[in-house]
Amino acid sequence: MTVFKPRNPDLRAPRGTSFAKQGIMDHIGARLVKVEPGFCEIEMPYAEHLCQQHGFIHAGVVSTVADSAGGYAGFSLMAEGDGVLTIEFKVNLMAPAAGEKLIARGRVIRAGKTITVAQSDAYMVQDGKEKHVAAMQLSLMCVTGNPTVSG
Amino acid sequence: MTVFKPRNPDLRAPRGTSFAKQGIMDHIGARLVKVEPGFCEIEMPYAEHLCQQHGFIHAGVVSTVADSAGGYAGFSLMAEGDGVLTIEFKVNLMAPAAGEKLIARGRVIRAGKTITVAQSDAYMVQDGKEKHVAAMQLSLMCVTGNPTVSG
Amino acid sequence: MTVFKPRNPDLRAPRGTSFAKQGIMDHIGARLVKVEPGFCEIEMPYAEHLCQQHGFIHAGVVSTVADSAGGYAGFSLMAEGDGVLTIEFKVNLMAPAAGEKLIARGRVIRAGKTITVAQSDAYMVQDGKEKHVAAMQLSLMCVTGNPTVSG
Amino acid sequence: MTVFKPRNPDLRAPRGTSFAKQGIMDHIGARLVKVEPGFCEIEMPYAEHLCQQHGFIHAGVVSTVADSAGGYAGFSLMAEGDGVLTIEFKVNLMAPAAGEKLIARGRVIRAGKTITVAQSDAYMVQDGKEKHVAAMQLSLMCVTGNPTVSG
Repeated sequence: MTVFKPRNPDLRAPRGTSFAKQGIMDHIGARLVKVEPGFCEIEMPYAEHLCQQHGFIHAGVVSTVADSAGGYAGFSLMAEGDGVLTIEFKVNLMAPAAGEKLIARGRVIRAGKTITVAQSDAYMVQDGKEKHVAAMQLSLMCVTGNPTVSG
Repeated sequence: MTVFKPRNPDLRAPRGTSFAKQGIMDHIGARLVKVEPGFCEIEMPYAEHLCQQHGFIHAGVVSTVADSAGGYAGFSLMAEGDGVLTIEFKVNLMAPAAGEKLIARGRVIRAGKTITVAQSDAYMVQDGKEKHVAAMQLSLMCVTGNPTVSG
Repeated sequence: MTVFKPRNPDLRAPRGTSFAKQGIMDHIGARLVKVEPGFCEIEMPYAEHLCQQHGFIHAGVVSTVADSAGGYAGFSLMAEGDGVLTIEFKVNLMAPAAGEKLIARGRVIRAGKTITVAQSDAYMVQDGKEKHVAAMQLSLMCVTGNPTVSG
Repeated sequence: MTVFKPRNPDLRAPRGTSFAKQGIMDHIGARLVKVEPGFCEIEMPYAEHLCQQHGFIHAGVVSTVADSAGGYAGFSLMAEGDGVLTIEFKVNLMAPAAGEKLIARGRVIRAGKTITVAQSDAYMVQDGKEKHVAAMQLSLMCVTGNPTVSG
């Protein structure tokens, strides 16, 4: 595993603040669980209003959480004052998102000066067991001197 | 332009029913505007609780709407009783989603027996003008005899 | 359709030179047919040594040509002295690549300062008719002052 | 790590035969190194005629090898007589492909009845060290009773 060194050593505080400002995270009930250099975990309890018509969490909502986990994983390695933009992502939906809780874990696989590449995996927890429901690959851009997270 | 013939001639009714059952569409305020063979348009008014921390609609929400438009475009060509699954999608986020209203237009570019490929474009309307904010390409699977839309 | 203005008005000459330097284009027999602002067309005759075991052109070769068409479409809008890098692409393979000749057409859909987004479509020509075999979406990066095309 | 059981216990022989029939693999000098249930490794020595104009292996060639590794990883889990089709792939090009040799390793992350999802990573070996140059995510389809690999 590559070990990444953040350019901003105190990564928790500003990221939490940024996360807290995202109306959408509150609207869907998502919560920042952990941020480490090059890694981020977000979880979201199951709720019916997040579902498609068969009671599985909608692919777009799974993607929202996975994108945020990947974006914050990338953001965690950037310098104070920098911002992160999602240029694009691709996601495979591998199983119906049924269960009690969604967990997304984002990991940086390449931290470049301008472009960061991350992977984010989403799992549904059911009866204490995790099922892998989505795999995402993202391209992020570091915007120097502009502390934006635009998931 | 390819002209597609739906296997189910009365495509509007069942699709509207399926759409209405999606808790998430109601939760984000999205509305099915138009379904034609191989085409679907969905719109969603801007709202703060759908945004990231800078007041732009979150990429995941843009993707939710674009994915649904692409999925229903594919669904529109399938037979009565069939269902549609999103296998995967890829989306480029090209401009901040600022404005009064989001419009997503999905179009089928290949309708196979098992695999359908669609493209879906998302626009923000501001002062009556459309700005292209996202371009998505999706792979859909037709599930015979299982009328599911799992976005 | 968006009309793009190239930052480098004399786009044909340097691009032809860059193309001619690509060993791979010669190795697979590809030829630059047309470059216009935000557009590029490349063609490649069918050959058995470009195929997988059933006699269809290999998906990777189709992607090589489509990626180059998309890359040069983006490159055509950049300034003298700039280079273009493919950050990533996604391609759907929609039909077997059988026929006499492959044509790829790349088009820019967003030309940003740093990031350009293009789509590239590949067609096989058989008995004078075109069949759409692949649809690609690419993210390109403009590298200022570094005239590289790294497809 | 998920442990996969192949439906075809003798996976090496037919896969080697299929690989040997691919004109393109011979044309670019690629060689099947290893196939295990859900895993495949392919390598290809560096050659100038595989490069873009700056002497790096062309992204399309890197993708060809990575796609094949992912495709054979999926194929390794299918039953005798089945074939595999690449529906689509997405690849991030993370570093210039410079060095002596390219290695691609494909791994299945979801083996479904119809759809298999794989990831394939490409590395360049230089002075005995591996550098991660590309990350790919693929959707494959199992074609029952049709032993095709259409990479």
